[in-house]
This record gives sequence, C-alpha cells and structure tokens, in this order.
Amino acid sequence: MKDRIAIIGDGAWATVCAIMLCQNGQAVRLWSPFAEAAEELGDHRQNRKYLPDVTLPDSLEITADDSRALAGADWAVQAIPTQFIRGAWQRLLPYCPPGLPICSVAKGIENHTLLRPTQVLLDVLGGGSSRVAALSGPSIAPEVAQGLPATVVAAGEDPKFVERVQTSISRPYFRVYTNNDLTGVELAGATKNVIAVAAGILDGLAVGDNAKAALLTRGLVEITRLGLALGARQETFWGLAGMGDLVTTCFSPVGRNRSFGEAVGRGKSVHDALAEAHGVVEGVATTASVVELAKRAGASTPSGAAVHMPITQATYDVLFANQSPRDAIAALMNRPLKAET
Amino acid sequence: MKDRIAIIGDGAWATVCAIMLCQNGQAVRLWSPFAEAAEELGDHRQNRKYLPDVTLPDSLEITADDSRALAGADWAVQAIPTQFIRGAWQRLLPYCPPGLPICSVAKGIENHTLLRPTQVLLDVLGGGSSRVAALSGPSIAPEVAQGLPATVVAAGEDPKFVERVQTSISRPYFRVYTNNDLTGVELAGATKNVIAVAAGILDGLAVGDNAKAALLTRGLVEITRLGLALGARQETFWGLAGMGDLVTTCFSPVGRNRSFGEAVGRGKSVHDALAEAHGVVEGVATTASVVELAKRAGASTPSGAAVHMPITQATYDVLFANQSPRDAIAALMNRPLKAET
Repeated sequence: MKDRIAIIGDGAWATVCAIMLCQNGQAVRLWSPFAEAAEELGDHRQNRKYLPDVTLPDSLEITADDSRALAGADWAVQAIPTQFIRGAWQRLLPYCPPGLPICSVAKGIENHTLLRPTQVLLDVLGGGSSRVAALSGPSIAPEVAQGLPATVVAAGEDPKFVERVQTSISRPYFRVYTNNDLTGVELAGATKNVIAVAAGILDGLAVGDNAKAALLTRGLVEITRLGLALGARQETFWGLAGMGDLVTTCFSPVGRNRSFGEAVGRGKSVHDALAEAHGVVEGVATTASVVELAKRAGASTPSGAAVHMPITQATYDVLFANQSPRDAIAALMNRPLKAET
Repeated sequence: MKDRIAIIGDGAWATVCAIMLCQNGQAVRLWSPFAEAAEELGDHRQNRKYLPDVTLPDSLEITADDSRALAGADWAVQAIPTQFIRGAWQRLLPYCPPGLPICSVAKGIENHTLLRPTQVLLDVLGGGSSRVAALSGPSIAPEVAQGLPATVVAAGEDPKFVERVQTSISRPYFRVYTNNDLTGVELAGATKNVIAVAAGILDGLAVGDNAKAALLTRGLVEITRLGLALGARQETFWGLAGMGDLVTTCFSPVGRNRSFGEAVGRGKSVHDALAEAHGVVEGVATTASVVELAKRAGASTPSGAAVHMPITQATYDVLFANQSPRDAIAALMNRPLKAET
C-alpha cells in the first residue's frame, strides 16, 4: 500500500529520505521553504547544494507552495534544521491536516525554549505526543545516497506509526530498528553534535586519536548523564542513536559539526568557521541549549547543581566565551587524577 | 622514591612504558627475549623496528639476559604479546623474585587455555591475584611516544599496587585512572581487537563510516555481553578500556588489528595479510579464543548456548573458515528487522 508522504525541508537528509521513499514506491512530495531552491531542484533534478551528483527520482514532486506542502499527505518527514522548525511549521500550520503524523530527522535543541524537535512540532501544531516520531542514528547522507549500508533507529510512542516509518523507508542497505525512547533518541542525536564539535576541535589541534577516543568516551558518559536526568534510557545512548551516531559524526571527514570544530581548533574564529561551513552547523546552537538544559535538569535535584558536563562546558567556553581551544582542552586534561567511575 | 622496574618485552608499548617511567625518574631495565633485538636497541638507542625516530632515555638499561631481567626489581611490566607470555615467563621463572608484582599491558586471550594475560602469569608463576594488574585504554604507542595526550586505566585487586603503577607512570600527557575490575579491563582490551579486525575488514570493503559506526556499536554490545557473563562490570566496557580503546583501535590508521583487517577486506589472504603485518596481530589469535570463551561462558547457563557474538563469529568465519569478507558482512546486515534493544 502506497503512502503519500510530505518531506518538509530541502537539505541533504530531506533529499536522501525522498530518494529512499521513492525507491520503495511511496508517493513523495518535497517542500522547500525557498522558491529558488525548489526551482533549482526541479530544473536540475539534483540537490546541487547539499547532495551533488545524485539524481532525484522522476516520481518525486517538488514544491515551495505552502498550501500544497502537506495536502493529502498520510504523514510527513520533518527535515528542517532545529532552530528553523518553528518558523517553517508556523508557515505550514494553516494547511496542516489535523493530527498529521510527523517523523522528525532534525538533531538539535531549540534555543531558549530548550525543546526537542518533536516538542517544537507539538508546540506549534498541538496534538498528542503519539503523533510524532524521530529517525536518528549513524547516517552521513552522502554515504546513504550512494547505497552504502547504514543502520538507524525510529522512535516514538505510537508503535504503529513507528513501524509505518520503518517499513516505508527501510531499504536493503538502510536498516531501521524501532525504539520507544523518543526522548533519548532525540537527546542523543542533539548532544552528540556538541561532542562532535569538541572532537573536531581536537582534530584541529592535532592532538591525536588517543585523546579523541578519550573525549568520545567521556562525552558519551556526560550526554548519557543528561539524558538520564531528563527521563531517557541509558541503553538508547549506548545504541545506534547515541554511540553509533557519535562515532560517525566524530570521525567522518564530511561531518559538518566535526569539520566546523576542526576549523576552530586550527585557529579560525567561530564567526569565520561558521561562514565557511557548508550549511547549518546544528552543534553550535545546540551547545548553548545543552548548557541551559543541564542547568534546568539539575535545578530540580537536591543539590540544585547543573548536570556535570565538562566537555560541553569547555565547548561552550570556546564557542561563546572566547576561550582558546588549547586552553579549554588543557583544562579538561588537567583535572585531578582519580578512579574512573 | 625511585622504583626499580623491569620491563619484559621489546615491542612498541614496552618501549613507550620504558620511556615514560624513565622520564619519571624510575630505574628501568628492559628485557628482550631476543639477543639481537637487545643488541640493536642498545647500539642505536632507538626501537627502529617498532617505534622508529624515538630516542631511548640514557638511563634505560637493556638486556637479553634471563637471569638479569628481573633482578632487584620492585615490580615488572609484562609487555610480551599474549600468545608468547607463557613461554617468556617460563624462561624467567627461575629468576623471578617470589611474589613480584606484575602489571600486564598485553591485550589478548591465550589460545586453548582461554586465560587472560594476568591469569597466564599466575598460572606460570603462582601466587595470589593481588600481585597482578593491567594497564589498558586508548593508547596507540607512536602518539604517546610523541607526548600527545592519552588517558588510560590501571586495574587490579590490590589498590596499593594499582596506585603504585598509576603514580610511577603518569605523565602530564599520560593520565592513568584506577579501576578495580581487572577481569573487565583485560577482557575489553582483548575483545576490542576482534571488533577492530572486523572494522578493518569494513574499511577494506569501503562500505563507509555509517556501517563502521553501527559495527562498533553492536560490537561493544556483544563484547560487553561476554564480559557480563564472565563477571566483568558493564561500566568498564563503556569506559576508556572498552569504548575508548575500541574507538582508537578501529579508527587510527596505524592500528595493527585494523590495518590487518583492511588488507583482508581488500581481498588479501589471511596468510599474506599476516605476513605483511608489522608485528603481532593480537586480534587474530584472540578471535579464536573469544569464540571458544563465548561457548564456555554459555555452557554454564540454563540454555547452554554460547554467548551471542555475531560480529566475532563473522570475523572468525573470515579468518578461520574461509568465508569471503563480503558474504560475512552481508550476513550480518541481513538479519531480520527488529527492535533495537
């Protein structure tokens, strides 16, 4: 049975999702918030900006028409970067079918509100949390577009919708496991970008793979700590959406968060490194959100202290408080010797 | 207070340990099982075979004399590769001071006996388990030799000996945490080499970083499962000795297990890839041991089935049962879709 699926967004992941869903015979429409981008996609049948050299399926419909974006859709894929979700969906709100199920593929935390992507959707659109889901995991887009194997998780509270996402998008090379820890999957996907920026900074400082592995290990510990404080499950952080995505994001040469961090580590200013980044670097805004979230999560505990996230804090200090990358890393390395756990 | 420390072995890690201990002012003697190797080290004051371009400290004594190896030592570093520990220490047994504390840095499981390195030491030398310790974690030797930062764990049952190792070898760039899960630290160090061979095979097949990240994630799950069945602690596998070392070993271009796997993944025979490897590839013999260990650990459970380790089994099938790397990986990817946990 063919699903009619609306993809909201025009980035690399929006495009890859569109391709896989079309390959599976679904009826897919992709909406770009930008008329010129939609025109360019339609004219060239390629996403030359974010996913060059990959031909779009003939069956893929492309539009920038707000009223057409979600018309007749059975469900939608939310692929707008986190900080722009609210604006895009406010535009689409007048045309959104009531209760439309939506699967988000964004990885971040909205600034100021500190909401996860699916929480932003519910905040804008209303409805119960069973209408949303998230797809996440180690899935650098150009690899998936080439048909190289990837394994991800789909998470949500409504098992029927999660399984619908799973069966609609799974390909022989793209395996989707299900998971019911939506909070954990979204938090892991957001916070791993912070650690990836830090890992990129280490790459830029050329301090080697031993230090980077230690950073990933301690980074996973601290983002798990935040997750637990916010009701997520530990296993989610040690699964594909956590450790798996962390590893890919921190090592793939094409990862945007890692590459941005590397430029900063090499001495580029945050401003210049952002200007030269190819697209939105989710980890930057997310770092600010996660520092706030750690404070908020800690405020309700007996001590009232923020959840302890030294790597996230060091990353924040580099990005927003003008600390030098080398000093921030030295501070991390020079904490007193102690037992590991 | 200066310690007199005997280093047993002449590989890259033996050399790096010798250098750091000398830098800390300890009195260090390094024993090679091979007279020519000892002569070469002494003549050139470099380990040209395993750690070129690094000058040995003047204070380092080098010997191949069995009777001199451990004479007067306060404690020893065991740096012989796993499958050769028994033979080397049987040679040294007549000269070994009774109860000499020994810290092992080997990462493997002895074939047939299925003993961890410190268990082999106790089997040969006798004495209680508080005389042994292990040092492990993400620590690719050439990086440490350059003074690049690394963070590792020292584990053992006697906290005094573990702290003695910690304080003797810690450098500003080499941080040693303590841990009391000797079983977990040694099992993690051994089994991560199996996953690293598998990760190298993926590199050789050029299937991308998404697949490799999924392999690491599921690999960590399965080696943790074995560890739990053998009495290790879960946290150890998610710490520096587990996840940390796994990440370095699977991504560092100079890792021997990964490089060997990559050659096999590119189509080289196991025999030829081993012949071209630079030194002992611990992961190969360890793969055979771990498959047996999974059977033994499972035999005492109600089902009697081996601990489920599909990646280890696939690696075994490639190394010892002539399965093609691509078929083994395809079999891993094509298991039925299901929930993640």
